[in-house]
Amino acid sequence: MGVSGQTNVSAVGVGLLGLGVVGSAVAKALLSRDQSKERKIPLALVSAVVRDPNKLRSIDLGQSIVTDDPQAVIDNNSVSIVVELMGGENPAFDYISSSLKAGKHVVTANKEVMCKRGNELLRIAADNNVELKYEASVGGGIPIIGPLTNDLVANRIQSIRAIINGTTNFILTKMAYEGADFDDVLAEAQSLGYAEADPTADVDGFDAMYKLSVLARLAYHTEMPVEGIHREGIRDIHSKDFRYAGELGFTIKLLAAAQASDESGLLARVHPALIPLEVPMASVNGVLNAVEVEGDLVGSLWFQGPGAGAEPTASAVVGDILKISESSGINSYDSATFAPFNIIPMNDHVCQYYMRLTASDQPGVLANVARVLGDAGISISAVLQKDTDIEKTQADLVIMTHPAREANMQTAVSLIRKLETVIQLDNLIRVENYAGRL
Amino acid sequence: MGVSGQTNVSAVGVGLLGLGVVGSAVAKALLSRDQSKERKIPLALVSAVVRDPNKLRSIDLGQSIVTDDPQAVIDNNSVSIVVELMGGENPAFDYISSSLKAGKHVVTANKEVMCKRGNELLRIAADNNVELKYEASVGGGIPIIGPLTNDLVANRIQSIRAIINGTTNFILTKMAYEGADFDDVLAEAQSLGYAEADPTADVDGFDAMYKLSVLARLAYHTEMPVEGIHREGIRDIHSKDFRYAGELGFTIKLLAAAQASDESGLLARVHPALIPLEVPMASVNGVLNAVEVEGDLVGSLWFQGPGAGAEPTASAVVGDILKISESSGINSYDSATFAPFNIIPMNDHVCQYYMRLTASDQPGVLANVARVLGDAGISISAVLQKDTDIEKTQADLVIMTHPAREANMQTAVSLIRKLETVIQLDNLIRVENYAGRL
Repeated sequence: MGVSGQTNVSAVGVGLLGLGVVGSAVAKALLSRDQSKERKIPLALVSAVVRDPNKLRSIDLGQSIVTDDPQAVIDNNSVSIVVELMGGENPAFDYISSSLKAGKHVVTANKEVMCKRGNELLRIAADNNVELKYEASVGGGIPIIGPLTNDLVANRIQSIRAIINGTTNFILTKMAYEGADFDDVLAEAQSLGYAEADPTADVDGFDAMYKLSVLARLAYHTEMPVEGIHREGIRDIHSKDFRYAGELGFTIKLLAAAQASDESGLLARVHPALIPLEVPMASVNGVLNAVEVEGDLVGSLWFQGPGAGAEPTASAVVGDILKISESSGINSYDSATFAPFNIIPMNDHVCQYYMRLTASDQPGVLANVARVLGDAGISISAVLQKDTDIEKTQADLVIMTHPAREANMQTAVSLIRKLETVIQLDNLIRVENYAGRL
Repeated sequence: MGVSGQTNVSAVGVGLLGLGVVGSAVAKALLSRDQSKERKIPLALVSAVVRDPNKLRSIDLGQSIVTDDPQAVIDNNSVSIVVELMGGENPAFDYISSSLKAGKHVVTANKEVMCKRGNELLRIAADNNVELKYEASVGGGIPIIGPLTNDLVANRIQSIRAIINGTTNFILTKMAYEGADFDDVLAEAQSLGYAEADPTADVDGFDAMYKLSVLARLAYHTEMPVEGIHREGIRDIHSKDFRYAGELGFTIKLLAAAQASDESGLLARVHPALIPLEVPMASVNGVLNAVEVEGDLVGSLWFQGPGAGAEPTASAVVGDILKISESSGINSYDSATFAPFNIIPMNDHVCQYYMRLTASDQPGVLANVARVLGDAGISISAVLQKDTDIEKTQADLVIMTHPAREANMQTAVSLIRKLETVIQLDNLIRVENYAGRL
């Protein structure tokens, strides 16, 4: 495949249109992955277009790479894949279509252009025998375009229901949990960078509508013009509504939904909705996104993850770049490349333990067990003790430990089994550690 | 492309090894999709291997298709894709490898063979320039092999935590919610067909271990031999343990987990684990499966859905068949084929409504509103009334309706706005319908 033959491995040239927070994260991921020991991905960041090449950035790519001329990327023979991260319909449409017509693959995170001009762009890509990928346009880092395009194609999709706008979900979550008013939370979201100075695209439901249109086209193999989507935003939601909805057993989310059947047709809508507190959708909080897909074969599937942010979006963008470089055969990326991972034995695992003992119901039992654990360097976090017979000769003793190494615990367990006051060690169950990642 | 030229469209021949519940669902899906109006997928079910061709089945494929000779499928020139649904390491390995060497693509739902011989089989596939796909081997209908293979490749995967055995999750859920004992629930699961007569593969963690090995190889690009996976089953879990765990704020699940870092290495384990009640994993009940993936770029992703069952598994198998037939260029399947869906206007949407009014606090207000709603054919499900000022001149009136058509509700709303006793209609929010699909 070597185009030039100048290097051992012909690197795939990537050009970025946009070097904001997402663009910078994409650049960093490309550069770090390129040097990663476990994967040989000869991707070269050839060019990056910015508005002001002299602005100080978090990533220094060097003067030879940064330019303010998009055409310089599109015309660059070393660029095989153009990554569009500018957003909006124009001039993004022109740059994407010019790139495709110039025989370059395109990766975009742009939901608006994929909603309004997606069919046109996909046709141009097909006509020019290049790929146009847009996983990052919906749901940030959540794989949803890929599964709908590939994994779920055997299904007739019955419905899609989603929370796909992080800004409004952040605002509604704050309103729900803190009783705050819309205007105050919007101001806070703006100061945190979660909402734009002009929040219309988010709070009036345009962003969710664009994304729903993209999902509906894929799921139903049909045109889904925005005029056909009912759209309402969240400006009228009052903190009172959360209170009353809560009394009735509901919370409020900005829902994007499309349902279809051959008999009736397709209904697509974006609006605030009361969601029963007991369904998973009600627990999708903050900037999280979630997509529920119902197919006739698969039933109900649930995808959840970070719907925005520089690095999750970069995950989807760089994923698309790698897919293109692999499938188009212009890269030697080998997903079967194996790295010599050290396999860690279970003895080195560290966690809390739940231990259940049947013990003689007499003084000193707990002290004996605690001493053995202490000698093994294991401390106790909680204890339950319950009589199990009427004569009170036996008791269940349940001990929750602080985190301990498996090897230490096994040593302690063998000694606890030998204690005279311990009739039986009934069970030892590890506690899964979720600290810091609920 | 066109092997024979006898038909207008060269159909892709599919041969099934196995025609049990999953095989029958695959056959039905292939046959029904083939005739579906919205997709032109010229797939032909050429051959299906069964143990007893004379047995009565839920699907009648005709004598020319059903055979008891696997070699007849492997040697059949009309078969391009062999689908292996027999399970187990042998003779599945021989049939898969023979098929690959005969230049046929293979789709399998077999986690055991993909765990124990997966590397070998993938290499044989690569050497013979054919594809081997196995989405159905882990998580039933949940797309997880696809996302790990394609969509998440930009990430270094930090951890995978999963509930990937439906049988044990069914048993543990019953024990948790009904206080039942293991032996009783196992017997019930066996009578329902959720557990085998010999339940070892499920309840002792072998099935989860095979699946974890498959996921770990993909996620970490490394060999993950079963000897390196710590494995414990659920036979020792007692109903008491659920009671005590509950008092401490936990439930118990059979967890399959792999964590890795470049510095320390890879630790893989299958064992019962105490799961904090407030994390999503604790709410994965019954035969549901769930996979949590943490990547360095994307953060935490959550995939959930039916982990077993004929139709969800068929969704993954037929998805793989379609992917192969598309990517290998042997099929004219066009994902951009559009169907003329009727776009349904919002006026035809039916749901419950939450309505909040500011009303004069005087007798008859609710009666007036209820009469207008009644005239529009809308009945009331619940009412809240709250005074909002000290003088009690105004009140918030919150009405929850029974399901109504949007057009009727909009008619009612315009009349309610004109009522003298209604000071303001503050909000009208639709209630999302989750009936029957929690």
